[in-house]
Amino acid sequence: MTRQIVLASGNRGKLKEFNQVLGELGVEVIPQSQFSVPDAEETGLSFVENAIIKARHASQLTGLPALADDSGLEVDLLNGAPGIYSARFAGAGATDAENNQKLLKLLEGTSPEQRTARFRCVLVFMRHAEDPTPLICQGSWEGQILPLPQGDNGFGYDPLFLVPGLDIASAQLPPEQKNKISHRGQAVQQLIKMIPAYL
Amino acid sequence: MTRQIVLASGNRGKLKEFNQVLGELGVEVIPQSQFSVPDAEETGLSFVENAIIKARHASQLTGLPALADDSGLEVDLLNGAPGIYSARFAGAGATDAENNQKLLKLLEGTSPEQRTARFRCVLVFMRHAEDPTPLICQGSWEGQILPLPQGDNGFGYDPLFLVPGLDIASAQLPPEQKNKISHRGQAVQQLIKMIPAYL
Repeated sequence: MTRQIVLASGNRGKLKEFNQVLGELGVEVIPQSQFSVPDAEETGLSFVENAIIKARHASQLTGLPALADDSGLEVDLLNGAPGIYSARFAGAGATDAENNQKLLKLLEGTSPEQRTARFRCVLVFMRHAEDPTPLICQGSWEGQILPLPQGDNGFGYDPLFLVPGLDIASAQLPPEQKNKISHRGQAVQQLIKMIPAYL
Repeated sequence: MTRQIVLASGNRGKLKEFNQVLGELGVEVIPQSQFSVPDAEETGLSFVENAIIKARHASQLTGLPALADDSGLEVDLLNGAPGIYSARFAGAGATDAENNQKLLKLLEGTSPEQRTARFRCVLVFMRHAEDPTPLICQGSWEGQILPLPQGDNGFGYDPLFLVPGLDIASAQLPPEQKNKISHRGQAVQQLIKMIPAYL
């Protein structure tokens, strides 16, 4: 029997990736847009709280178990900014290019060694809207902020994120390779291990 | 140098245990009562949300990093109750005995096999009140609800929790032995491993 779960995201790349890895467990992942669920307001102060808010909202409005992802970039020189505000760093509705530009401006004149950063990802799976023990999976990926955007893959800050050891930007990695090592990839690997006990 | 962190709990047993295990890492754990921090209102719908609420509150009022614990008992026949309401199952300010009595009443006439249950524990460590990536450590401990209370150790539902394999109640275990295998013990072991990266 295929179980359906709702994904509290409109990102097609994430939907595809989750369906690939969870399909093997007999799970069909359906985007919340298919149920006309509007985006939840991300009022949390941490990644995990925002992921819970989104998963709860999607589960509440669909009656299905829900999966949500919250992720972002922490830049040490900026005291962890943009962090949970990564997607709206240059303002509500900002494009990836605008966010990247703002980040570069703030780091102008700094050396590569000073521009250490990491991507963070938190995945939350809730069996129902009032699930007292959401499954929480986390990953983080250390890197550096590049002086100029490079590459066309991925999204968000991928063109500015230097992957250590490989000396290319995250946006220059093929998706399959990125999924193996990225912050989200690590969280997804935890999810695959742990979700069977929650289904 | 000893670092101070505040514990968002008034439980003396927990304080002692955390000081024992974190003392070796050069951390002094101080109860929030020492800073006259009142208890936070636990308005969350999950253990992790309540732990975050408590840790944030303690950190906000002291300016120190904060550690909080939220734990409870899930009984399968009761659909997971008392869960996050474990401490207030028989009402606000209920005693352990009153909570235990209510649980026994609800399970009257059921067989031991039907009374499967588990203790859950979530520990949250926040470096500051707006820490976007709180450290989250979790543990769970499977068991069964006994027909009558047994033992004088521990607290909460320990007298009613049959430890599988040992055939005694959790309240009959010596504290050191309980700390090795319990839900909280498991979470604490994760905490010891992971907290150095957060200090």
